[in-house]
Formats: sequence, C-alpha cells, structure tokens
Amino acid sequence: MNDEWCNEINNGAAIGLKIKRKLASKQSDFQLVEIFETEEFGNLMMLDGCTMVSSRENFLYHEMMSHPAMFSHANPKNVVIIGGGDCGTLREVLRHKGVETVHQIDIDKVVTDMAEEFFPELCESNSDPRAHIMFDDGIKYMAEAADNSIDIIIVDSTDPVGPGEGLFNHAFYKNCLRALRTDGIFVQQSESPLLHLPLLLDMRQAMLDVGFSALQHVNFPQMIYPSGWWSGTLAKKSGEFTGFRSDDAKALATDKALQYYNEDMHVASQALPNFVKRAFAEQK
Amino acid sequence: MNDEWCNEINNGAAIGLKIKRKLASKQSDFQLVEIFETEEFGNLMMLDGCTMVSSRENFLYHEMMSHPAMFSHANPKNVVIIGGGDCGTLREVLRHKGVETVHQIDIDKVVTDMAEEFFPELCESNSDPRAHIMFDDGIKYMAEAADNSIDIIIVDSTDPVGPGEGLFNHAFYKNCLRALRTDGIFVQQSESPLLHLPLLLDMRQAMLDVGFSALQHVNFPQMIYPSGWWSGTLAKKSGEFTGFRSDDAKALATDKALQYYNEDMHVASQALPNFVKRAFAEQK
Repeated sequence: MNDEWCNEINNGAAIGLKIKRKLASKQSDFQLVEIFETEEFGNLMMLDGCTMVSSRENFLYHEMMSHPAMFSHANPKNVVIIGGGDCGTLREVLRHKGVETVHQIDIDKVVTDMAEEFFPELCESNSDPRAHIMFDDGIKYMAEAADNSIDIIIVDSTDPVGPGEGLFNHAFYKNCLRALRTDGIFVQQSESPLLHLPLLLDMRQAMLDVGFSALQHVNFPQMIYPSGWWSGTLAKKSGEFTGFRSDDAKALATDKALQYYNEDMHVASQALPNFVKRAFAEQK
Repeated sequence: MNDEWCNEINNGAAIGLKIKRKLASKQSDFQLVEIFETEEFGNLMMLDGCTMVSSRENFLYHEMMSHPAMFSHANPKNVVIIGGGDCGTLREVLRHKGVETVHQIDIDKVVTDMAEEFFPELCESNSDPRAHIMFDDGIKYMAEAADNSIDIIIVDSTDPVGPGEGLFNHAFYKNCLRALRTDGIFVQQSESPLLHLPLLLDMRQAMLDVGFSALQHVNFPQMIYPSGWWSGTLAKKSGEFTGFRSDDAKALATDKALQYYNEDMHVASQALPNFVKRAFAEQK
C-alpha cells in the first residue's frame, strides 16, 4: 500500500482502490481495523490489510450470502450469523418477515463500532428487536449451541487465516451440523473459484465428511475480493436442495432495496462453469 | 505501474498482476504493445497500459464472446471478427464445425505477431483453412461489406477510447446491421455492469436506434478487467432470441477444451441483477 491506494494482494494479483484519506485506524485485540474514504467507492474497511467492505459494492456479498440460503429453506425462524460484524448480512436476513431471532456472533466489537460510524446503512437494522448482536468467539458459541435449535447458520467471516481460521474445519462444521434443525442450512463464504479452487474443494470435502447431505455452490461478482469472482457454499443437514421459494424471492426482489439478488439470479448463481463442475464431479 | 506490477487503473480502482519480467515491448502504429511474464497468471499482454489478455484467465472472455452468439444462431456459416488480434475468439469460433469462413480484421498486426509468439495456444487455429486473418480498419471493412452476407459479427475490441473508439457508434452499427443476414447476430464486449453502466446503456440504445430488433446481455467474470465483472451485448437483426441450440452447446462443452461455457452457463449468464434489470427496463 502506498499513500494513495489501498491494495489487497493475493496469488500474485492485487486489487486497489484509490483513497482520499484515512478516516480511522484501530488495532483491536484481534486485527488492525482501518477505514478509508475512497475516490469512487465510498468508504472502505480493511482488516489486517485485506479489503473487506466498500460502500459501493458490498450489496453483492451481503445479498448473496443471505438470500440464497434463506429462500432455500421453507420457513427460517432462527438464524445465527458467525462473524458478520459489519452487520450487512444481518440487515439482509432481517428483511425476511418470518424470522424470529438472529444471533450474530462476531469476535471483534471494533468492527461493529466502526461499521456503525462509517457504514450506517449496513447497521440500520441493528436495533430490530429480533437482532441479538454478541461479541464472542463464534467457534465456542457453536460448540455450546443446543442441538436442533437453528434453521440457518451463515458464516460471514474473513479468510481462513487469522481470526477466521477455526471456522474452516471439521470440528466447527460438526457443531454447526448438530445445532441445525433437520431441515437446516449452513452457508459459508468459499473464496474465489478461479484462484482458490483447492481451498473450495477442501471446504466441500470437510462439509461432506462431517455429514452434510447436499451442497450448493453459488457464484457472484465481488469486485474488491481477489479475482472479483467470489462464491458461497450452502450445505443441507438432510435431504437435497429442492425447496427454492421462488415466488417469495421474487416478491422480496421487487423491494427496491435489493440491488442484485432476485429469483433469476438465485438460479443463475448456481450454474457451474466447466472447470468447476469437473472439479466437483471428481470429488464425489 | 512500478517495476514489479502491471496495473490497470479505471474509475478509482486498480487491478494488478505481479510480474517477473518484461518479455517484449513495441510501439506499433496504433498502440504500445507490451508482454510480461507474471508470477501467477502466465503471460500478460498490455495495450497502451491496459491489461488485455493473460494466459490463465483469458478463457472466460474468449468463450463468452463467441459461444453464446454462435449457439443462439441456427447455423452460422460466415463469421466476422472485428479486432480479436490475439486470436483467442477466432479459435473458439472455429470449434464450430458448421462454420465455413471466419474473417478477422484487426487493425494492428503487432498484436497478432505478439500473440503468436507469447500466446501460441490462442493461435493454434490460425492456419485453419476457414480462417482469413486480415490487418485492416474494421470500420472500413464493415462499411464495404456486402449486404446480407454475414451470420455473426463479433466485435472483440479494446475500450471505446483510442483505436477502438469508432466501433461504438451509430455509423458502425448501421453497417453491421446491413451486412448481417436476416437471422444474423451482432455481439460486442460491453464493459463492466458495475462500473460502466451508463456506457452499457448508451451502447444498447445505439443498437436499438439503428434497428436491431432484440438485445441479449451476458455477464461473465473477467479478473483482469476493471471490477472483474464483464459483459457482452448480443443484438439480433430481426426477431427475438428464441433459438438457443442447447443440445449442441452441451455437446461442445463436453469437449475438455472449454473451461467455462456450457449450456447452463449460457442461460445463467443472461440473468439480470436487479440494478441492471431496472436500468434496462427504463430504457425501453
């Protein structure tokens, strides 16, 4: 990074945003949290030097980490978000009227404090009475969660290095599987199909190993993440992904607040390019 | 750019690839053509400082600029590529057995010379007897093309500044429309929906203005172009886009050489995110 640009470097490639000025910087107990005002993308949050959230294009990630899972479940009432400290995923989940509780467990309160100050639009649902915002260890939370108590678990975390590392392994997945109700769905950000295919395959294998019954891959663009092409992986506790509520998805998408997701994108995001399809086929 | 990175800067954002060394550099009559060996993406061609082609991920662009149009036509025999000097699109078009001629008109022979040396895999079909590789002005070529003589026109050009500028206007589109057969299809790269929506809308409007009967948008990831999310716009001379040959697409996609495109991606690439759908709806 130099004085004018924020860059994230990964796999011999960099994505940078031109900045006007640094707005805030704080070393939390877990990571360096920095906020910049960019030239063209609104505000930018960086964690330990990785680009996390920009005002202009965070809608892609937040909509695609929440609605595909929510609309693949018949009636999600109790949702848990692990990570998600910027609160953008929480806001999307709370658009679903049937939701009764969302527990969000991020380890780092500084991230949420910064989000409330510099990304207030992402935090506009934080005072919803259904929202329970906690600052704690998500791994511990899931280890202690009651059996068969959660409909949807969304892992909205950093990459599998640093604070997010323990969210990408068998032990964590086992606890998530146990805590989900029979028709429950687990979803986790699963990096770039173009750059991180071995990691994506490892994640899928670990989910299958612990007993998830079916996986669903979703693709979406995410400009400030490496390659600009990102993915989520959904996993069902039992049965197949057969229950997409397309009419409900269409109804929510007519809400102007959704900028990317709709019933067509739900289906389209699941289509697999040849190199991904072949890699997945070899896995099973 | 510094000594270690090649960066393209656009709209306050940059995409960079880490380089090992510069392999070649030549100022042609039209642009500066540079080739680098990168750390992780094979070779990279830059034109006037813009990232054009990398070995590792060019398949996305080349497959998506050719196969959606080719499989939307009942039986494309005569194809014209305007630009396309790296020959990657040509290679994809020539995978279609029914094609009888492909005329490729790029203004800059240096681009093709460099491609043959540093991207030989893209040029592997250059000696196909159906391929007619010409170095000339594509605008003039289309102005002089016979009426009703072409099935598919693919505009595989740089951005609408510099040499590519005259390929994005009414005069050029009128000649393309005239030269297409009744069931002909025109396709042009149409930049990033996220960053260049006004330009995309202008292109679509110009195509409709000159008399194209129907448009089809396709999305695809393209890591080394701004935002990593790119698009193509297909335009029909008459009628609607109703003739997708999905069985033929499936058959070609089973060919291991295709890394991205298949019959599912064909359909998925056409799904419109809400903000794009709304912008298009306001246009009509």
